Amino acid sequence: MLGKLKTILIGRPLHNDQLRNEKLNVFWGLPIMASDAISSVAYAVEEILWVLIAVIGAASYGYMFLVAAAIILLLLILVFSYRQTIDTYPLGGGSYTVARENLGEIPGLMACGALVVDYILTVAVSSTSGVAAITSAVPALLPYSVIITLVIITLMTIGNLRGVRESARIFAIPTYIFIVSMLIMIVTGFIRVKFLGYQPEPQFTVPQVMGDVSLFLLLRAFAGGLSGLTGVEAVSNAIPNFKNPAQKNAKRVLYLLALFVLLIFGGTSYMASIYHAVPDYSATVVSQIVSQIFGRNFMYYILQVSTAVILFMAANTSFAGMPMLLSLAARDGYMPRQFNTRGGRLSFSNGIIILSIAACLLVVIFKGHTHGLIPLYATGVFLSFTLSQLGMLTRWLRSRKPGWAHKAIINGVGFLMTSAAVIIIAVSKFLQGAWIAILAIALLIVLMKVTRRHYADVARQLTLPPEEVKEETELIHVQKHMIVLVNTLNKASLKAINYARQLANNQNIEAFSVSVDEEQSGALREKWKKCRMTVPLVIKYSPYRDIIGTLMKYVESEEHAYKPGDMLTLVMPQFIVDKVWMNIYHNQMAYMIRQKLLHDRHIAVIIVPYVLDKSEKKNGK
Amino acid sequence: MLGKLKTILIGRPLHNDQLRNEKLNVFWGLPIMASDAISSVAYAVEEILWVLIAVIGAASYGYMFLVAAAIILLLLILVFSYRQTIDTYPLGGGSYTVARENLGEIPGLMACGALVVDYILTVAVSSTSGVAAITSAVPALLPYSVIITLVIITLMTIGNLRGVRESARIFAIPTYIFIVSMLIMIVTGFIRVKFLGYQPEPQFTVPQVMGDVSLFLLLRAFAGGLSGLTGVEAVSNAIPNFKNPAQKNAKRVLYLLALFVLLIFGGTSYMASIYHAVPDYSATVVSQIVSQIFGRNFMYYILQVSTAVILFMAANTSFAGMPMLLSLAARDGYMPRQFNTRGGRLSFSNGIIILSIAACLLVVIFKGHTHGLIPLYATGVFLSFTLSQLGMLTRWLRSRKPGWAHKAIINGVGFLMTSAAVIIIAVSKFLQGAWIAILAIALLIVLMKVTRRHYADVARQLTLPPEEVKEETELIHVQKHMIVLVNTLNKASLKAINYARQLANNQNIEAFSVSVDEEQSGALREKWKKCRMTVPLVIKYSPYRDIIGTLMKYVESEEHAYKPGDMLTLVMPQFIVDKVWMNIYHNQMAYMIRQKLLHDRHIAVIIVPYVLDKSEKKNGK
Repeated sequence: MLGKLKTILIGRPLHNDQLRNEKLNVFWGLPIMASDAISSVAYAVEEILWVLIAVIGAASYGYMFLVAAAIILLLLILVFSYRQTIDTYPLGGGSYTVARENLGEIPGLMACGALVVDYILTVAVSSTSGVAAITSAVPALLPYSVIITLVIITLMTIGNLRGVRESARIFAIPTYIFIVSMLIMIVTGFIRVKFLGYQPEPQFTVPQVMGDVSLFLLLRAFAGGLSGLTGVEAVSNAIPNFKNPAQKNAKRVLYLLALFVLLIFGGTSYMASIYHAVPDYSATVVSQIVSQIFGRNFMYYILQVSTAVILFMAANTSFAGMPMLLSLAARDGYMPRQFNTRGGRLSFSNGIIILSIAACLLVVIFKGHTHGLIPLYATGVFLSFTLSQLGMLTRWLRSRKPGWAHKAIINGVGFLMTSAAVIIIAVSKFLQGAWIAILAIALLIVLMKVTRRHYADVARQLTLPPEEVKEETELIHVQKHMIVLVNTLNKASLKAINYARQLANNQNIEAFSVSVDEEQSGALREKWKKCRMTVPLVIKYSPYRDIIGTLMKYVESEEHAYKPGDMLTLVMPQFIVDKVWMNIYHNQMAYMIRQKLLHDRHIAVIIVPYVLDKSEKKNGK
Repeated sequence: MLGKLKTILIGRPLHNDQLRNEKLNVFWGLPIMASDAISSVAYAVEEILWVLIAVIGAASYGYMFLVAAAIILLLLILVFSYRQTIDTYPLGGGSYTVARENLGEIPGLMACGALVVDYILTVAVSSTSGVAAITSAVPALLPYSVIITLVIITLMTIGNLRGVRESARIFAIPTYIFIVSMLIMIVTGFIRVKFLGYQPEPQFTVPQVMGDVSLFLLLRAFAGGLSGLTGVEAVSNAIPNFKNPAQKNAKRVLYLLALFVLLIFGGTSYMASIYHAVPDYSATVVSQIVSQIFGRNFMYYILQVSTAVILFMAANTSFAGMPMLLSLAARDGYMPRQFNTRGGRLSFSNGIIILSIAACLLVVIFKGHTHGLIPLYATGVFLSFTLSQLGMLTRWLRSRKPGWAHKAIINGVGFLMTSAAVIIIAVSKFLQGAWIAILAIALLIVLMKVTRRHYADVARQLTLPPEEVKEETELIHVQKHMIVLVNTLNKASLKAINYARQLANNQNIEAFSVSVDEEQSGALREKWKKCRMTVPLVIKYSPYRDIIGTLMKYVESEEHAYKPGDMLTLVMPQFIVDKVWMNIYHNQMAYMIRQKLLHDRHIAVIIVPYVLDKSEKKNGK
């Protein structure tokens, strides 16, 4: 039944040969690469205001311009830096690759950890923010925002387990609608206030506070606004997905992406200040601006819906990125191997599921508030930016190929700016949540180191040089004696005994039982006689009810000519139930015995299944 | 390491022969049986006030007397009813036994479910109430009350897993201190107000409300106060624990218990009304009264401490009762068998652990507030009272032995009163929490029915009449052919192959591998050749990466002379790691394959362990 449900949800398995990618030109490539970066405008402007307005009230709208300008400057630096990454890594230069190759193992793992945190938060932040766009338009849905977010993440998970093709067409339409309508909104908004003399009628009142404008305050606002630059790195990771000339096309997309972020981010910041938007959990800043510019008409709904859709698409990009990153890490031995196994639909299912669970947890913990999640988000993003820049810088300093100095300066400036950003974010948002991201990255690094060491350790123990095969073969001596573990004599234990009897040619078998209760073992002995069993039955009484200990002691005793080092075989019947939960009724002791016995390298265990039929329906009235 | 920790916490295993009980006389028996009933006074009085004061304010103190009188009347009826149970069931007549024997299976299960809910809530209610006595005395601890409660429940759990003897002496001292000091308090309190003209100086002000006194209000207060009668049934369950004449001694204890409940409950209600106590989460009603009567001196702390201790002892009684009940139910097939297995220290460990987890969950969910838990509590208690009374009534009506009419009237009145109480509680407290108790009881009944049916079903399938032994023996034919599952050729898989080779006398073995990736299987084939393996290697390519399906198809194919119905043997190496969490790195696929294969009743699985050594410490340089 579970299998059927899986097929309905996920679809039939796909053939290995069905694994291929479609190549993108600039027009179709932009929306795929841009959804994450452009959509982050939806929450970044709001983040700046959250910081400022609580302290300096109406004065925020003036200072906002300064903060937005600083962020746009950083954007331009990033564009120049990533241009060089595109030139250098035609196969895709994610920060994990760049950092690992140029800086070594630990920085590579740091980048990997930062990216994992980044991917998880992209899902959480973008989907909560998308839902906020919906609930701003339909306030009646506000109380259900957490549930709606979880449903949307679940749908994405299912879609990605099915193996959604990154079909450019699906992405293109809403992204272009979003870009165009945001631009229309900005132009209309500008005209309305500057030429038509519209007086803003804000939905919420600006708090009457007059705090001091400190540098720290502006840096905090800057740190919040940096969330608008998340996703800028996407292009440089995905160069092989572009049509030839791939690098040239990638760079074109990068420029366009930067242009749109610049226009929409700058424009929205400006609108927020002239329309006096006030961040609030019940309506997004964009919604407040749009409803003043257009009123709640058709255009308003177009904008809210396309905002929500582009945010969901941004969340969806993580479902492609993170499982791929985890599979890379698993291939390098840093993550459990399961992450490098493709599921039935060729997707890296385990990575998808982990991502989904982590994002859902965050949404629940932060009650679906984007604002609460942002401090966790930017840390990871900018740490990975920094490591990527530092990696490129190191590369130029080492290679000293023609033109290296020029390139080193660009990446050097990028490194300085992004590392400054990391420090600003980590310090100014530490208590609000950056510590969680830092802790998570540190834990991931430890996890990856431990995993790698474990696999290396195991590989060393298992490696079998061809010349040692003969030697290894002589190492074990298997005793022909078999011990069948029985508790009572019923059809299941009889099957195990008969199996062992035939396998061992009817010799050297005995049944063994640990008694914890004289009465019960008396009954067993009685039944054994009645059934005229020819296999000898050994019962040992354990007054301390220590079944495993008593069994081990007997198995390794010399009562049956056991020689230390011999391999022994223990036969156990096992009930096979048709529903997993039914295992609570059976096999518990057998499971524990098996776990314990196998730790002794000299005991092999044979499990003889006894399938219990599916209750009355089949067996009787 | 886990084993060592267990020994430190729980102690060394005990011998079967160490299972025995000490017999109690009246003086030592009273405290054990009475702690639950007498201690409930600590919250029952408060519960009445919670209901009244919010509606009728200061007028509550007058009506309280009425409600308390009704409860005391019910207490007397219960005493007469349980007297008859003691006479009739010299081996202990818990309501599960009485209901099952006289009313049938479903009422028995209903009583069992009600008792389970009752036991869990006794732990939760008594321990939160005990902690409230502490935090009333030391308000600085108030913010930590949930944590303190959880620690105390955990300590009780450990104590009971160790198998605390129900040593009467441990119980006796605090119980008698509690009884004596409560009586002193009541007398002193009475004298202070009535003869010395003390004017109450309440810690909290009585709400200024003047609602209507409705019958429903009084019934709700009555329902709350009924929590004071919980634990009255304890005596009739435990008759075999008394010294001879056991029944006589039990009845004496029952009378004394009732007398003390009457005095302390009645007296405390009266004190609450003349000292104008107001229920509040930050100080218990008893604490408010005592601090007015004695001031915050020695006597105050004696009372608070002895209240806390008697409440914890009351909670502790559940740890003896519920595991015993579950083991009874397990013996009758209504609960998974694990509940009928004694742990290392002879206690029914599984029952203790379940009880502890459930109680801790309730404490956390209800934030450690006794008041929130009470509506759940009384439902279960009075449902079990009712079923017990109805069971006795039915017994008299059926037997018609001399004197039956007189006895039937007593139990009949008991039944009417307790069933009225159940209805009052269920209706008046339904939304506040009684629904949870009712739902839990219903779920338990379903669980028990399902369990019983499953075990009966399995027993029918497994039963082996002696005359069928021969027939069953002829049923299976074991093929000598063995298939060893390999993925790569390393020391672990070589060990499995060598094991199989020796067990099967070097014939009829083959190694089998499912390939999901041509490159990997090429490498395997290469290595096989290099190592000059004599065992044939079969590789099947699965483009859909369906390892299990491909394996199953091969196993049941006729390529190796498989005849339908033959039993086959599959050999799998298994890595044994020294830490449980390391299993995340290994054996996942092997585990899934085993689960799937064993469902086919014709495949036995041999697990050949390969123990991985404990990392560098042992293996490195």
